[in-house]
Amino acid sequence: MKVAVFGAGRIAEVHVKGIIRAGHEVAGIYDIRPEPANALATQYGCAAFASPEDALGDPSIEAVVIGTSTNTHSDYIIACARAGKRIFCEKPIDLSVEVAENCWETIKSSNPFIHIGFNRRYDRHIRGLAEAVKSGELGKLENLTIISRDPAPAPIEYFKVSGGIFRDMTIHDFDIARFILGGNPAEIFATGSVLIDPEIGEIGDMDTTTVVMRSASGQLVQILNSRRAAYGFDQRIEAVCSNGMMQVDNILLDATVKYTPERSAARARPMDFFLERYGESYDEAWVDFFARLDAGDEPGVTFDDGLQALRIAEAANRSIRTGEIVKL
Amino acid sequence: MKVAVFGAGRIAEVHVKGIIRAGHEVAGIYDIRPEPANALATQYGCAAFASPEDALGDPSIEAVVIGTSTNTHSDYIIACARAGKRIFCEKPIDLSVEVAENCWETIKSSNPFIHIGFNRRYDRHIRGLAEAVKSGELGKLENLTIISRDPAPAPIEYFKVSGGIFRDMTIHDFDIARFILGGNPAEIFATGSVLIDPEIGEIGDMDTTTVVMRSASGQLVQILNSRRAAYGFDQRIEAVCSNGMMQVDNILLDATVKYTPERSAARARPMDFFLERYGESYDEAWVDFFARLDAGDEPGVTFDDGLQALRIAEAANRSIRTGEIVKL
Amino acid sequence: MKVAVFGAGRIAEVHVKGIIRAGHEVAGIYDIRPEPANALATQYGCAAFASPEDALGDPSIEAVVIGTSTNTHSDYIIACARAGKRIFCEKPIDLSVEVAENCWETIKSSNPFIHIGFNRRYDRHIRGLAEAVKSGELGKLENLTIISRDPAPAPIEYFKVSGGIFRDMTIHDFDIARFILGGNPAEIFATGSVLIDPEIGEIGDMDTTTVVMRSASGQLVQILNSRRAAYGFDQRIEAVCSNGMMQVDNILLDATVKYTPERSAARARPMDFFLERYGESYDEAWVDFFARLDAGDEPGVTFDDGLQALRIAEAANRSIRTGEIVKL
Amino acid sequence: MKVAVFGAGRIAEVHVKGIIRAGHEVAGIYDIRPEPANALATQYGCAAFASPEDALGDPSIEAVVIGTSTNTHSDYIIACARAGKRIFCEKPIDLSVEVAENCWETIKSSNPFIHIGFNRRYDRHIRGLAEAVKSGELGKLENLTIISRDPAPAPIEYFKVSGGIFRDMTIHDFDIARFILGGNPAEIFATGSVLIDPEIGEIGDMDTTTVVMRSASGQLVQILNSRRAAYGFDQRIEAVCSNGMMQVDNILLDATVKYTPERSAARARPMDFFLERYGESYDEAWVDFFARLDAGDEPGVTFDDGLQALRIAEAANRSIRTGEIVKL
Repeated sequence: MKVAVFGAGRIAEVHVKGIIRAGHEVAGIYDIRPEPANALATQYGCAAFASPEDALGDPSIEAVVIGTSTNTHSDYIIACARAGKRIFCEKPIDLSVEVAENCWETIKSSNPFIHIGFNRRYDRHIRGLAEAVKSGELGKLENLTIISRDPAPAPIEYFKVSGGIFRDMTIHDFDIARFILGGNPAEIFATGSVLIDPEIGEIGDMDTTTVVMRSASGQLVQILNSRRAAYGFDQRIEAVCSNGMMQVDNILLDATVKYTPERSAARARPMDFFLERYGESYDEAWVDFFARLDAGDEPGVTFDDGLQALRIAEAANRSIRTGEIVKL
Repeated sequence: MKVAVFGAGRIAEVHVKGIIRAGHEVAGIYDIRPEPANALATQYGCAAFASPEDALGDPSIEAVVIGTSTNTHSDYIIACARAGKRIFCEKPIDLSVEVAENCWETIKSSNPFIHIGFNRRYDRHIRGLAEAVKSGELGKLENLTIISRDPAPAPIEYFKVSGGIFRDMTIHDFDIARFILGGNPAEIFATGSVLIDPEIGEIGDMDTTTVVMRSASGQLVQILNSRRAAYGFDQRIEAVCSNGMMQVDNILLDATVKYTPERSAARARPMDFFLERYGESYDEAWVDFFARLDAGDEPGVTFDDGLQALRIAEAANRSIRTGEIVKL
Repeated sequence: MKVAVFGAGRIAEVHVKGIIRAGHEVAGIYDIRPEPANALATQYGCAAFASPEDALGDPSIEAVVIGTSTNTHSDYIIACARAGKRIFCEKPIDLSVEVAENCWETIKSSNPFIHIGFNRRYDRHIRGLAEAVKSGELGKLENLTIISRDPAPAPIEYFKVSGGIFRDMTIHDFDIARFILGGNPAEIFATGSVLIDPEIGEIGDMDTTTVVMRSASGQLVQILNSRRAAYGFDQRIEAVCSNGMMQVDNILLDATVKYTPERSAARARPMDFFLERYGESYDEAWVDFFARLDAGDEPGVTFDDGLQALRIAEAANRSIRTGEIVKL
Repeated sequence: MKVAVFGAGRIAEVHVKGIIRAGHEVAGIYDIRPEPANALATQYGCAAFASPEDALGDPSIEAVVIGTSTNTHSDYIIACARAGKRIFCEKPIDLSVEVAENCWETIKSSNPFIHIGFNRRYDRHIRGLAEAVKSGELGKLENLTIISRDPAPAPIEYFKVSGGIFRDMTIHDFDIARFILGGNPAEIFATGSVLIDPEIGEIGDMDTTTVVMRSASGQLVQILNSRRAAYGFDQRIEAVCSNGMMQVDNILLDATVKYTPERSAARARPMDFFLERYGESYDEAWVDFFARLDAGDEPGVTFDDGLQALRIAEAANRSIRTGEIVKL
């Protein structure tokens, strides 16, 4: 299948590689800035499109990756859907639930195939936990803790346009919570602080947050986030069930273990950041994308999944403002 | 030093042993039920008092352990204080903040020496973490998670008089949070569910709870409780600091590790319950009790510590009722 | 039961405590040096014997602990056996197999109850592994590795009279190997070096050794010893079986775990040395000693066990001299 | 650089991929059986050579991979060296030290570039340990243990032509021992058993072996091998140094951890077998191969490295026959 890629940044390249590894063809790259598009196109031996329409108007191109800046996602989704393309759109759909809802209203009648790029659902470690929980081998899920701490904060310019920590960072954890719970939580409470960098507070954001959610059946979920962890990218999940418990532990840089006069059995640092830790999951998402198209199935992560995660993020922001539980 | 013990139940015997191991003398036992008092007295070769007054009126007895049922603590504290005894009172002081406050008002002018039995402060593992946090070797504390899950629920009769999970169980974790934070949190949110036994819900209690607290400087604390953990007594703490992280892990029944065709490096179950897991800490509390008396110091856990933990528990209950953050 | 203790050193006190904890009585202490005997007797409120005969001639004393220097063990065993006492003799029986054999020849007709102090058989971690191996739950034992490294070398004066590393240190591991194998190995190879302290080499001993043994059915055993481990007292066992593997890991000073920018999940150091690491096992040995006497059973560790371990140690020395496998 | 590949089996394909990933070109495949050569050539879009001479006579081909059956290695090395090709030869060079020595005598005057395929030297985990040992950060190496157990035995037909466990399997560990020691050991002792499959014994081989080596300075090395491990491919290294200890632990299939009523913190099984566990190392070897050619350096693993490992394997066989230490 021939796929066009919109966007030529770091994540776009991840998708280019994923498409190729999955055995499909990148037809060309479009970016609002021609230079990175040309560079990436040259590197991977494909076309650089002068405009999105060049790709959308090419009937041999069956699918489009939307890996551009978030505020353009919605318009590109509409354009791609209208052009009859299959869509792989990076998360989040938009920073505004309303915009995302309007987008869906506009396109839903054509029932387009839209996969939202929540790659962590394709991480085999998380998947192993989710499948074990679903299988019931450990009994019923009662308490789920998701820990996600970045190794170091991004530049403040990034945070200014990020939509805030819940829409930018926690949104992955909201999606994973929904994935493991098998549906939406019923209510949410959120709190947070500025402990790492006062500038983050000055732009109205937080760098250290705790979210608590509760499902309709009373299952509890905690999401602990931080924009910095001195000990490395901290990505852990813990699912307490009625008959046992299962965790996803950090994946470490290597398998060495050190014993010194001070401490025993010290392991390596965690893998550096998301492109390393979750690298495989991007590829797995592409394998799944094409397999589901082939089989005539729904996408593995639907537009609605993207919308629900965004709604939870907005509810988290509301809880921060009110100091109250917010019903979802 | 001669010590009288009020109460002849399981925890009273723990204190009898702790006093003896610390090199001091148990003068006698009093219990409202003479049989267990006589039995314990016979076992440890000391007197069985017919009434509390017998002990309070004996000038050779310098200290009294109050290990009776919670609703009697306050009166015994007052009686002991008036008799000029040093006091070791089991937690909680009372189920009511008001009663505890009135107790203090009644006795404070005599400035009695009252140690409240929050034994976990004397657990050397927790102490090691608290001291590392305090030392600043890992930077500043940013996020503290306390996990406490009992292996199995107590009988429903116990829960009926327990004052609810926050005053009965979480109160230990509130105290440990204060111990590690070095003071009171500024606000609290609590939520919970009945997932284990519907009877627990019928008496107005919960069996699975999550508490989030925030200190004045923005540090976040999560306390995760459950009245049952199929995989054993789960007692873990995790302190994320600006330069590193430190945990207290479960203490396991033995040091064996199994490798099977299914899983690698499987360790033993955790120690069964609090008398095993925290057994040493009861003894350490007694060593500290006598050492501080000798040195003329304040108790290691003060009446105010007991009162603050109780206030936090009441605030947690209020948060459950309102669905809101409660200021402390 | 009243027990006399011969010897007043560090290990003698361990036995005094073990006897008392097991609910029995220490009648008195004898040592060739009166001062430590008097000191220990005073501390534990028992008699100090002026001569061994004072204890041996007292019919109320039913058992004797031989915790004196190794070269006196054999004579005391004979004297105790002739006096009809039950005997608890520290390991090794003697430094010479011949002396130990002669000792047994002298006393065997009276079939005395002699327990040899291989305390590690009573360590519950090792016992758990031995029982799992014996149960067959992991299939048949194929390869057994015993690692024993002291935290630091003893003074050279100690080594001069120790009988060499195999009779002094490895003898514990020979016994544990026999305990787990359920019998004697068929052959042995040993090699070693002086890597820690040249003085150890100058007195004809080694500080770092490797022993390989093979059972009649072909099971392989490795014993790795060192007189020093910078990372602490290293006591590990690994039993590879046909259907799985089981280890005894080191027991650590506490349950804290550290994460730093350099390393993840660093645990505490191992417990300091044998009195800490194997402290419980000394008490368990005494419980077993009295229980077997009560039940009319053979001792838990027999004279023959002591003799076989010594024979293996001599064979190890022969292998060192010849560079060859030695049949046992 | 254009590379010809001799051999079209499983390992040949590993090298084809490694060459391509390193950014070089596979010119074509030769195999004595045309079908697999054609198949592999078709799959990777390169030529299938009708004879080795077709590749050797092509001046545009600069390097040749010898991935054929072991008994052909020596002749192909000579032919390639005469043709002026750079050589990447799979291990072992030959089953006979004499043949390997003669091979070298024949070609040494032309000083050919020959890399021997001891891929494990390129495993980043092992490399991390080897570099830490070499750096001296843990002091001086004193005791090295290498554990290598296959998940399950190969077919008996494989074993019949394998040259025996030491030349087939342990040879990797001999090489790693040399790599970590930084040179040859001085002496070796070997023992072994048939515990897994009597057929292995009937062909004169063993399935469970222990090797002990000693360096000139007294460092001890243990290599523990088995042709089967029920708990999975067991690949561990432990380097005890004067100031600490470092291990390479098994690499597990995933990062999940399970807690059940029976056991705590059970991890996943190890990766299945060498193509998975050491997959990266094959690629790294190719990167190094080309980098050293570029830089004009010696190969990362020399002909002499291959020869020394083979000599140690022969010495191990001699020790088995004699029951004695063999000097190297």
